[in-house]
Formats: sequence, C-alpha cells, structure tokens
Amino acid sequence: MKIGFIGLGHMGNPMARNLLKHGHTLKVFDVVPDLVKKLTDLGAAAASSPAACSQGVDAVVTMLPSSPHVRSVYTGKDTGILSGVPAGVLLIDSSTIDPHTSRDVAMDARAHGNNMVDAPVSGGTGGAEAGTLTFMVGGETADFDKAKPILQCMGKNIVHCGGAGNGQVAKICNNMMLAIEMIATAEGMALAAKLGMDPKVFAGIANTSSGRCWSSDTYNPYPGVLENAPASRGYTGGFGSDLMLKDLTLVTEAAKAAKQPVNLGAAAQQLYQMHSLMGNGGLDFSSIIKLYKKD
Amino acid sequence: MKIGFIGLGHMGNPMARNLLKHGHTLKVFDVVPDLVKKLTDLGAAAASSPAACSQGVDAVVTMLPSSPHVRSVYTGKDTGILSGVPAGVLLIDSSTIDPHTSRDVAMDARAHGNNMVDAPVSGGTGGAEAGTLTFMVGGETADFDKAKPILQCMGKNIVHCGGAGNGQVAKICNNMMLAIEMIATAEGMALAAKLGMDPKVFAGIANTSSGRCWSSDTYNPYPGVLENAPASRGYTGGFGSDLMLKDLTLVTEAAKAAKQPVNLGAAAQQLYQMHSLMGNGGLDFSSIIKLYKKD
Amino acid sequence: MKIGFIGLGHMGNPMARNLLKHGHTLKVFDVVPDLVKKLTDLGAAAASSPAACSQGVDAVVTMLPSSPHVRSVYTGKDTGILSGVPAGVLLIDSSTIDPHTSRDVAMDARAHGNNMVDAPVSGGTGGAEAGTLTFMVGGETADFDKAKPILQCMGKNIVHCGGAGNGQVAKICNNMMLAIEMIATAEGMALAAKLGMDPKVFAGIANTSSGRCWSSDTYNPYPGVLENAPASRGYTGGFGSDLMLKDLTLVTEAAKAAKQPVNLGAAAQQLYQMHSLMGNGGLDFSSIIKLYKKD
Amino acid sequence: MKIGFIGLGHMGNPMARNLLKHGHTLKVFDVVPDLVKKLTDLGAAAASSPAACSQGVDAVVTMLPSSPHVRSVYTGKDTGILSGVPAGVLLIDSSTIDPHTSRDVAMDARAHGNNMVDAPVSGGTGGAEAGTLTFMVGGETADFDKAKPILQCMGKNIVHCGGAGNGQVAKICNNMMLAIEMIATAEGMALAAKLGMDPKVFAGIANTSSGRCWSSDTYNPYPGVLENAPASRGYTGGFGSDLMLKDLTLVTEAAKAAKQPVNLGAAAQQLYQMHSLMGNGGLDFSSIIKLYKKD
Repeated sequence: MKIGFIGLGHMGNPMARNLLKHGHTLKVFDVVPDLVKKLTDLGAAAASSPAACSQGVDAVVTMLPSSPHVRSVYTGKDTGILSGVPAGVLLIDSSTIDPHTSRDVAMDARAHGNNMVDAPVSGGTGGAEAGTLTFMVGGETADFDKAKPILQCMGKNIVHCGGAGNGQVAKICNNMMLAIEMIATAEGMALAAKLGMDPKVFAGIANTSSGRCWSSDTYNPYPGVLENAPASRGYTGGFGSDLMLKDLTLVTEAAKAAKQPVNLGAAAQQLYQMHSLMGNGGLDFSSIIKLYKKD
Repeated sequence: MKIGFIGLGHMGNPMARNLLKHGHTLKVFDVVPDLVKKLTDLGAAAASSPAACSQGVDAVVTMLPSSPHVRSVYTGKDTGILSGVPAGVLLIDSSTIDPHTSRDVAMDARAHGNNMVDAPVSGGTGGAEAGTLTFMVGGETADFDKAKPILQCMGKNIVHCGGAGNGQVAKICNNMMLAIEMIATAEGMALAAKLGMDPKVFAGIANTSSGRCWSSDTYNPYPGVLENAPASRGYTGGFGSDLMLKDLTLVTEAAKAAKQPVNLGAAAQQLYQMHSLMGNGGLDFSSIIKLYKKD
Repeated sequence: MKIGFIGLGHMGNPMARNLLKHGHTLKVFDVVPDLVKKLTDLGAAAASSPAACSQGVDAVVTMLPSSPHVRSVYTGKDTGILSGVPAGVLLIDSSTIDPHTSRDVAMDARAHGNNMVDAPVSGGTGGAEAGTLTFMVGGETADFDKAKPILQCMGKNIVHCGGAGNGQVAKICNNMMLAIEMIATAEGMALAAKLGMDPKVFAGIANTSSGRCWSSDTYNPYPGVLENAPASRGYTGGFGSDLMLKDLTLVTEAAKAAKQPVNLGAAAQQLYQMHSLMGNGGLDFSSIIKLYKKD
Repeated sequence: MKIGFIGLGHMGNPMARNLLKHGHTLKVFDVVPDLVKKLTDLGAAAASSPAACSQGVDAVVTMLPSSPHVRSVYTGKDTGILSGVPAGVLLIDSSTIDPHTSRDVAMDARAHGNNMVDAPVSGGTGGAEAGTLTFMVGGETADFDKAKPILQCMGKNIVHCGGAGNGQVAKICNNMMLAIEMIATAEGMALAAKLGMDPKVFAGIANTSSGRCWSSDTYNPYPGVLENAPASRGYTGGFGSDLMLKDLTLVTEAAKAAKQPVNLGAAAQQLYQMHSLMGNGGLDFSSIIKLYKKD
C-alpha cells in the first residue's frame, strides 16, 4: 500500500520504519527536516505539507504531540490534510489527545468524504521499535477492519473500542487508573517498609491478594523488588513522569468538560505535578515513590 | 490439640467451628453468653474469663474487634490471658489491629514466657465458613511453624510475613492499596461511561492493559460488568464499606505514627467516610462508585 | 463618551444600564435579540456585529461567558472587533477567562493598534445592579487610567493588578483561595458541631483567632450563624456553586499550563464537581457544607 | 492562691513563671529535674509526684505533651493527681489533646469530687513569655469563672467554649481551618507569582477581597510580603510545621472517631507530613509554601 505518514518524532520514526519494513511505500512529512531525512534515507518520499503528504496514497497515519497540532495538521487552511486528501482515503490518528477534539476532527473528515479512526497507542518507544504497540481504536467497524492490517505492521494488539473518540477515552481512562494504582503501590510499599516489613515479602503478598495490580506485580516502584523494572535501574527508561503528567492533564480536563468527578485522578495529577516541580519529570513514572521515601 | 478460643462473633464463630470439625478440643470465651452457647452446643467447654480460657490448653486463638479489646483481653488485670496462661502456650491473635499494639502485646507475652503470632485474615465471613481464609502471620519462624497446622484448619493460604506485627502490616497495607485501586477503578469506569464508552468494553481493555487490578478484573464496581460481583446484585454481600473504612482508619493512623505520608490513602479514607455519611456504610465497598454516578 | 458594549447577559445587562445612567451613549451587541432589545428600549443603539459595534465609539466593553467566546468576538474573521475597530480605541474585557487567552488577545489588539485591558469583576449580579462591582484590571498604567472613569460607572473598587492578563490572574487566584477557605470553614464548622460545640460559639472563636477568613466571618456556611448569609435562607441567592466550579476549572487549568501544583485547589474543584453531580450546582457556593452534614 | 503546676517544658515554664510574678505560691512537678530546678530557683516548691503536687493547693494546672501523658498524670495509680488531690480542688488542663480523652478524664475527676476544665492555648512560646496567650476553655460556667483569674495571669483572652472538652474542640477545629487556609494562601500566592503577578500586589488584592484570611493578611507565607512574618526571616521562629502536623493528626483522628469527613483537613495533614519527610518539620508552618515553589 501507499501510506502518508505525518509526525516523525520519537514514536513516529520507528512506527514509520516498521511500515517500510513490511513493504509499504511511504510519503512522509514533519516540520523538522532532520526527522524527514531519517526516513527518506530509508526510501520514503518527502512531502512539502500535510496536504501534499495525503495525495496519491491509500491511507494517512498521523502521530502528533497534542490536540492543537492535530487540529492544525488536519484542518489547517491550504496545507492541512483535509485541504489536500481525496475523498475515500482512510485517516488514522495515533496521537494521544482529548476525545472531544478527536471527535470534532473525525466529523470534519467525514464531512469531507473521509473516514477516520483514532488509534492512540500504549507501549512507549520500546514497543514502537519492536512493533509490539497496543492500538486502542475508535471508529466504525468497517474502518477499524481497514485500519487493522496497517496497524498490525506497527503493533501486536489492535483493539476496537467503539465509535469515534473511544480510542482516546480508553487510553486516557486506562492511564488515569494506572497513575492512581502506581501511587497506591508506592504508598503501600513505602509504608510497609517503614513499618518494618521486607519490601519483597510485602510485594509477594499483595501480588497474590486483593491489592494486586500491574503496578505492583509487573512494574513495582520499590528498588530491588523486580529486577527488570525501572525502579531497579535508577528509574531510567520506561514511561517518563512528565508523559504521565500530560495524560493526567488530558484526562482531568476531559472529566471537567464531562462534569464528572475524578477525585483521586485529580490528586494524582497534582502529585505528578509536584514531582515534576522537584525536578523528576524525566524519570520513569514509577519514581513517584520518591515523594514517599528518602533515597 | 486442646485450644482456647476467645471472641466468637461473625468471624470467630465459624473459625472455632472449623477447629472443632478438625477434631480439636475447644475451650471458649466471649462476653456475650449467647455466642458462647452456640459453641458449647457443638461440644466446646465454656470458660469464665480469658485467663481461665488459657489454662489447660496447648494454644490460644483470639478474634477481637479492635486494639483496645486485644490489649484488655491479653493484659487485663486478673482476668486477662497473660494473668492465667502457663508459660510456653502459643498465642495466636487473628484480630485486625494496628501493628504497634500488636507488637506491644507480643512483647508483654514474651516477657511472660509465651510466644505470640499476629495472624489477621482476609476472606470475610464466607472464607471463615468455608475454611478458606488467608492468614498473614507475623512472628518468629519457629512459632509460625507451630501455628500453621492450627491455622490450616481454618484457612487455605498461610503466609509468613516476618517478625511480630508484620501480619498486621501486610493486612492493612494491602487493604489500603485495595481501597485506592477500587476508587481508581470506580473513577475510570464512570468516566469512560460518561465519555460514551461501553463499560464492559472498557473493562475488557483495562483488564488486559496497564490499568488492570483486582478491583477491575475480579470485583468490578460497575453494575453488569461482572455477573458475580456485588455490583451486579445491588452491592449486597461482600466486604462492607464501613469495614473498609475501619481498615483505612487503622492504616492512616499507623502511617501517622510512623510519620509516613499516604496522600491517596488518606483521600480514600475521607471518600469512604463521606460515602458512609450518605448512608451507604452497609453496602459492599465497591459501592463507592455511587459517589461518581447517579443510579 | 460613546461606548460599544458586547455581551448583554445577567451581568452585562445591568453593567450597560449603569453606563447609560451615567450619561454615556451606548452601541450594543449580543447574539440574542431579546437581550439587545432590553437595552435599545432604554436608548442604546443596536449594532449588527462586534465589528460594527466597535466603530464610531471611544471605547469597547465586552462581558462574555468563556475564553472561546472572547477569542471569537475579538478576532473572528470579518465580524470580530479587531476587523472593525479603528486604531486607538480602548478595549476593555470584563469576562472571566484564562490569563493565557487574555494575554494572547491583548497582543493581537496591540498589533492592530488598540490598547486593551482585562478587567474581570467580583460582586455578582447584585453588585452589577448596584454599581458596586470590584474590577481587577490588567494592562498598562496609562490604559488603566483611561479605563478607570468608565469602570467607575459600574463599580466601586477599581484595582490595578499589573500588566495584561493580571486582572484574570488576580480574579482566579483569589477565587481559588476563596473556594478552599469556604470548604475549610465548612469542614471546621461541621466537625465542631459534630464534636458537641455550639456552631455560633465556635464561629465566634475562629473569627477572632488564626482560623478567621471571609468565609467564616462574613459568609459563614452553617445555617443560623449569620442572619444575612445565604446559609440562613436555604442557600438561595449569592454566588452559585456551578459558577465557583467554573472558576475552579479555569484556575486549575491555568495552573496545569504553568506547571504549578495546586493540590488543595484541585481537591476543591473535585468536591464542587461532586456537589454539582448531586444536584446542588444551583445553590450558593457555601452549600458545599452539605457534603459534610445531613440536613 | 496556692497552685500546683505540672509540666514545666517550653510552654509550662514561662506560664508557671507568670503565676509566680502575679504573687501566687507554686508547688511544681516535672519528670525532668532540671526543669523543676528552674522554678525552685525562683521560689517554687518541688513535689515528688503529681499526687503530691496536688495536695495543699487551691488549684492544679497541667501542661503536658499528649493524651497518654494527660491520662497517666491524672489517673496513674498511686502517683496520679486523682490519687492525691482533695475533693473540691479545681483542675485545669492546658494541654492540647483529643476531646475524647479530655472528657474522659474530666468525668474521672468529677467522680472523684473535683471539677475540671480543659484550657488549651494558642499564642506559642512568645505568648507564654509575654502572658498574652489565648485560652479556650471547656467546662461548667462556675468552673470557668473560678479558673479565669488564674488564667488571666498567663493570658489575655480567656474564652468559654461550652462544656468539658469544648476547649479542645475549639482549638483543634480552629487549627485545622488555619492549616488549610495557610496552604490555600501558599497555593494562591505561588500560582499568582508563577502566572506573572507581583506577590505583594496580589496579597493586597486578596486581603481586601473574598480570599482574605489570617494566613494571607497577617502571616503571609510568601517571602517579602509582610516584613514581620516568619516568611521574611527564613521561616525561623513562629509555630513549627511539626507542631501543626501534631494538631492535624489530633483533629483528623477526632474526626474519624466522630465519623465525620474532613477531606481538605486530611489532605492538609498529608501535605504537612510530606513537608516534614523532606526535612522541614522544624521550620515555621508557613514554610509549607516550599512545596509550591523552588527557593
């Protein structure tokens, strides 16, 4: 297939490379020329704008940092995707943004004759490199079916979450639960240790009991409990605290717009904000345990 | 073996009955005569005080509602266990209390010549009836080994958590994580639904992703997601909100005494307190989702 | 003076009437014809768009419900103020919006040759009727001096808060403090009462001690403590809970954009959200005490 | 009058000295001989126990660090006040403790034939030295009237708060409001500054608006805003963060016992706990602003 790919940063670059590896022909765009060059060196063609990148292709994939970027790349006057793309071309947005913007842009696309799915990912740069990302997809079933073979070149689990915007809903609601559970684990582990219990023994008990969660059994924040977790290598690698903060900001704002309380979600957002203010935004998000224990 | 059993309420009654079923000889005590009669009807002998209940037996098991009860039953002048029990008799306290009191009483027992383990349970009255409780045991290894065959008459998982008090630490830290994770799940489920997603679909995604936890995959608070969860039968049965509130009170007070922050733990304690004030203390603890959605 | 006035709702209507009363000539615009008619009945001239409303006048005052409204009324293509207003006309925005948007629009205005001040108010519809509003003004000193005589027709305290956007900063930061202090007072009053103390006696002590605040000494949320407070008339009148929720939403989003933690501000936002979900959004904001006591 | 005084620490010492200055005859007790010597050097007589200190006097004043101390000093076997004091001697406890213990001990005293008032103070060591403390007094009116002339030797405002324990209720509920309002002020000041506003200008606006409180207008936590506040001298002197933490611990535990939610009170307790963990427990409590801004 011929695919347009817009947004070639830390995530977009390896995703685009995986499409090339699977034999697809790529047309690419990014505002940073160096990022474009990395892909043209591998055989992709460069386009001069999102509009140009959307012509002569079967589908367009976008991977952008925030809602305003998505809005401008899709609906920007003269240079936006919708000002250039022929009707019928499938549009796939893998950015993590708020569901409201996602649904708005999908409606604009549909008005223009293009079906669109939102397909945010989880799995980080590691999953993007390895082609093992999870895609949470919102859109019509027929569009999901068309997007699936493309997404399978870049990921392992491709999950249909319902109509437009639901990929975003699934992503940010899951990540809100994740952040709260990570803090729950950090508080529980640090308290058990302070009260005199061996952290590994406590983790073993929680992990086979009603307190178990992914943050405790797979990604434990206490150093030394899990050999392969970021906690055991100084919180390097993994999913940065500031990226978690970004998702918490998205989800708490979506909750406000929906007039829905999320008391612990908002508290988690604040704790990650405080953690960031202390200079820890670049560490893996499990480093939030630093709020609860001295090193 | 000859066993003394003190505290014959909702939990103590079925636990004592399971000891009888396994062929042990029981001497029992409770301040409520009717509770005693239920056991003497089944062949247990009644004692006139905790002290009397601790004489002529190989071990004593206690199952009491709070720290002050434990302190007075063990160290009460003239009538307390320690004023009557011969040196060398093993003492097993299955009450859920604060670790500090637990360690204090264990030291008093040791000074008196008796080894003691704390062995709080999880599993509720259902597990007590079925003999499938989990026991989290704090104490010396040799004492854990002696207590184990007795506890196995009443439970399935008997876990050694380290020295005196660590059974309590494991219990309350696990339950703090559980409460926070339940609220995390309630907030995530209610928000996903409010943002237009099918609750079952969202639960399916979270449960195979980084947001998964026992509260989401085994005990989901959203009605209809899991057929056998209390949420699907009006939040009846299960583990009452006011019992969770009691454990959150224990754990936040233990954290204060240890000068340890537990921000989300304290927030969870407050949300359960508010839930209780609204009249929902008798419902299963997953009913906390009522704070986040109208029925 | 000739003044253009845009936005004639609950607040804008009495504000515009006060300008008329002081002898100014008014040109008015609103998207709702009925709201325009109320002013033309009193002698104002109707304009067909914000652009038209800004021609032939010495100054323009806007009173709009949210940031997107302000942006579109000022910068909307063809019909926005900046597409019609002659250079040199002073622009005064009395809407409560986020400081970022406020500064953006002020920069657009300046680029167009117009000085602009942000001048959000406190005092509610009562203060708007009586002409006793407080205006918190952000902008250059010279522009503040020009705006002052106009604002004095509508308010009593006209405070210069510094450069562009600082009126908004003052407004939303003050209201965040107010919301937290109101909840502090509600929690303190309800707890003192629950612990057996007469609410009036406790209020008397707090009000002469370090716990005193405007919410306790002027606007006490406990029924019967202050005869003239909304609490003593069923929480009618006053400043609605949903309006406070709107301000809390603004301030927490401004904090997020500034990467600044506001832990209690975010917690207050959530408590007002929960209060609103329970159906109390229309009651005065001191009704938040309903979360803490049964009626 | 002849007065027994028990507890001669940082607060008790200057309070006792003020009684001497007013011509009263003192009998004193403390477990630390050096503290006793400081008073006997000034003419007080030393007693060998609380019981002995309560004989041959007209009234007894106690100033102790916590509930367990109060319980043991009053009701301790053989050496406690109640084992020595003749019926009819007035008992005045100025310790800050939980209202429940306060009421319990008052009932024990009454059963023994002694009336008792709780009279916790505010004003710190500075107020104790200067004799300008505020006393919040719980007890019968007749007893309040008897205690008043004694308390007036040590303080300026002597406030009757109602029956036994209400002095404690007033003290801890006021201090809970104070802590929350201090954090509200810290968050508001730090955010206004981060959003580009001059802290002094913002404080000036808040202090004349609905956000005003004692923490903003008298004890502002932002350095340089008030010349005489601890914030302007490196947070030295004043009321230590760990003392505020102690009061927050008392009030949140009293709330739990009363089954009363105090969401922001509990959040404040956690923030002070975190502040203490970071090593700031010895600084004035307005230093909590350090959580919100880098130095």
